[in-house]
Amino acid sequence: MNTAMRLQKLRNSLSEKNVTALLVTQPENRFYLSGFYGSAGYLLITADKALLATDSRYVEQAGRQAPNYQLFESKNDLHKWLPEFLCGLALKELAFEAESLSFWHYSQIKNIVKPLGIALVPVNGLVENLRTGKDDDELALIKKAVSLSDAAIEHMRNTMHIGMSELEMAWEIEKHMREHGSETLPFEVIVAAGCNAAIPHHHPCDYIIKENEPIIIDIGAKCGGYISDLTRTLFLGQEDAQFHLVYNTVLQAQTAAIENIRAGMSGSEADRMARSVIDANGFGDKFGHGLGHGIGLAVHEAPRIGAISKDILQNGMTFTIEPGIYLPGWGGVRIEDSVVLENGRIKTLSTAGK
Amino acid sequence: MNTAMRLQKLRNSLSEKNVTALLVTQPENRFYLSGFYGSAGYLLITADKALLATDSRYVEQAGRQAPNYQLFESKNDLHKWLPEFLCGLALKELAFEAESLSFWHYSQIKNIVKPLGIALVPVNGLVENLRTGKDDDELALIKKAVSLSDAAIEHMRNTMHIGMSELEMAWEIEKHMREHGSETLPFEVIVAAGCNAAIPHHHPCDYIIKENEPIIIDIGAKCGGYISDLTRTLFLGQEDAQFHLVYNTVLQAQTAAIENIRAGMSGSEADRMARSVIDANGFGDKFGHGLGHGIGLAVHEAPRIGAISKDILQNGMTFTIEPGIYLPGWGGVRIEDSVVLENGRIKTLSTAGK
Repeated sequence: MNTAMRLQKLRNSLSEKNVTALLVTQPENRFYLSGFYGSAGYLLITADKALLATDSRYVEQAGRQAPNYQLFESKNDLHKWLPEFLCGLALKELAFEAESLSFWHYSQIKNIVKPLGIALVPVNGLVENLRTGKDDDELALIKKAVSLSDAAIEHMRNTMHIGMSELEMAWEIEKHMREHGSETLPFEVIVAAGCNAAIPHHHPCDYIIKENEPIIIDIGAKCGGYISDLTRTLFLGQEDAQFHLVYNTVLQAQTAAIENIRAGMSGSEADRMARSVIDANGFGDKFGHGLGHGIGLAVHEAPRIGAISKDILQNGMTFTIEPGIYLPGWGGVRIEDSVVLENGRIKTLSTAGK
Repeated sequence: MNTAMRLQKLRNSLSEKNVTALLVTQPENRFYLSGFYGSAGYLLITADKALLATDSRYVEQAGRQAPNYQLFESKNDLHKWLPEFLCGLALKELAFEAESLSFWHYSQIKNIVKPLGIALVPVNGLVENLRTGKDDDELALIKKAVSLSDAAIEHMRNTMHIGMSELEMAWEIEKHMREHGSETLPFEVIVAAGCNAAIPHHHPCDYIIKENEPIIIDIGAKCGGYISDLTRTLFLGQEDAQFHLVYNTVLQAQTAAIENIRAGMSGSEADRMARSVIDANGFGDKFGHGLGHGIGLAVHEAPRIGAISKDILQNGMTFTIEPGIYLPGWGGVRIEDSVVLENGRIKTLSTAGK
């Protein structure tokens, strides 16, 4: 991980925005910029300094993982160590990550830095925006995670049978990914059969799968911290007209999005590529979520792809394309691939059959 | 789950503190008060109303899981639906959970409610305090989770051998808990062998375990949303004088805490019970974390038990007692049990051998 280059890019961005110092508290941002993946710590980045404060549990680990940072052990409570941490930097303003810092944490920091003559300035998305452009190493890890979720869905397609419960299927899938190299899963495996498939984020339960019902399986693997996200809707038995109609509508919508999304579009324009197909087939009000979301260190990160997203899609971004139709009382269909935007167009990373 | 009773207790607490309406955004609090366990949603609780707002992904699920709440579908963005959600309540103040609401989210809500004549009021710990007193159903779930982690550690004690990696051990333990009834683990299994055991929150890696080195294993199971937390330090080979001294010091410290902690003590007084033993043996500066933390729906919840905690320990509280000594370059020892405070004294829930 080239944290020196990431720090340089961040500094360019800070300079453009006239931010003299940024306090980084968001966990994925902390990891992205420093390589340190402990669960607690603060980065402080200025034009010429990169500091990392963490407590005794993580000091040794942080020293190993974040060699580009000057290490500081945060002892006792914030009121004691923060002034010392900031001492010598001669700051007048300190930017903080407003989307992740809690109001309470913000209030505490404000009370501490005000007497030091430092004003807190809320900022959003500075590091998140850097994170949207994946480098080759990041893309390689995402592809590895994608191949693990692809293999797990094919494994399930070949081994599932009437009589298995959603929970049994979910665990079988999880074991397959973990035993083939996935780190702890980025989110719980979703297996939603029959009526449960009408709930986009259903938790698997002891419901026994039957013939002639849709079965939505939504899974992700993780490699080196980077994740994949994949959904397939499977079916055991004889597909009826309703399933056929719903499935083909979702598939057409996804295909249209994959073929027509271009670099330079906004998230809402991209969303429209799929949503217009679903609308045209009369299911517009049954597709209640956005078309997709960025993937990387987080399952949901920038860019957002939905009806009101102004994020601009750019080459190097990795995200999902996942239209769905949900019919309470019947079930649902969702088809999701992880993709990357390359040379202005969508390249699908997942290879699992549809 | 008796959410009606929990709502009543919360209303008593709101009334005592002159809070007319509370917006609940913290996920475990939302589940505790409503039974709804989707990943997104807002509760709004007043003296006579209990509302739940969530988006289309979760509306059906919320209806099933939270029958005591009036359901509201949050469509489009916050600016659109929040005024409608609040409409008809005639609020002048709205309390929010300052420890979990992000500064950004707070700012958005503030901008929306200000024109409606509603002032936002930060509060902390209102629901968290209710959550500290476990009822019989909650305690039964915690005990079930404890028995799963106990069984997994004994399984590992009987099956581990020289040549296994930390990662292999961690996965073997995770499989054991999951296949015996644990939900998705509340935190990643920690296996830290040799020098790695000097890092309290080490991530398991491909390090191969050897003879004559401490092996810290820190695990938790989850049942019905409630968690256990257990640490044992194992050893293969011939214990040397150093291991003996460190292990016995930690065990004495833990025993002293278990025997001497009483209801009515503060978290810092309880911490002192163990810390004084470690101090007396000359390892005071090698025990850098607190003695324990509340457990329940979260791995770390109230009460805190550490050098600066003013939380008062009360009957019905469940928490961990986990002293440790960490020696960089050598390794470490931590011994942790999940306990409940009953009849004024500590009752240890874990039965795994020490």
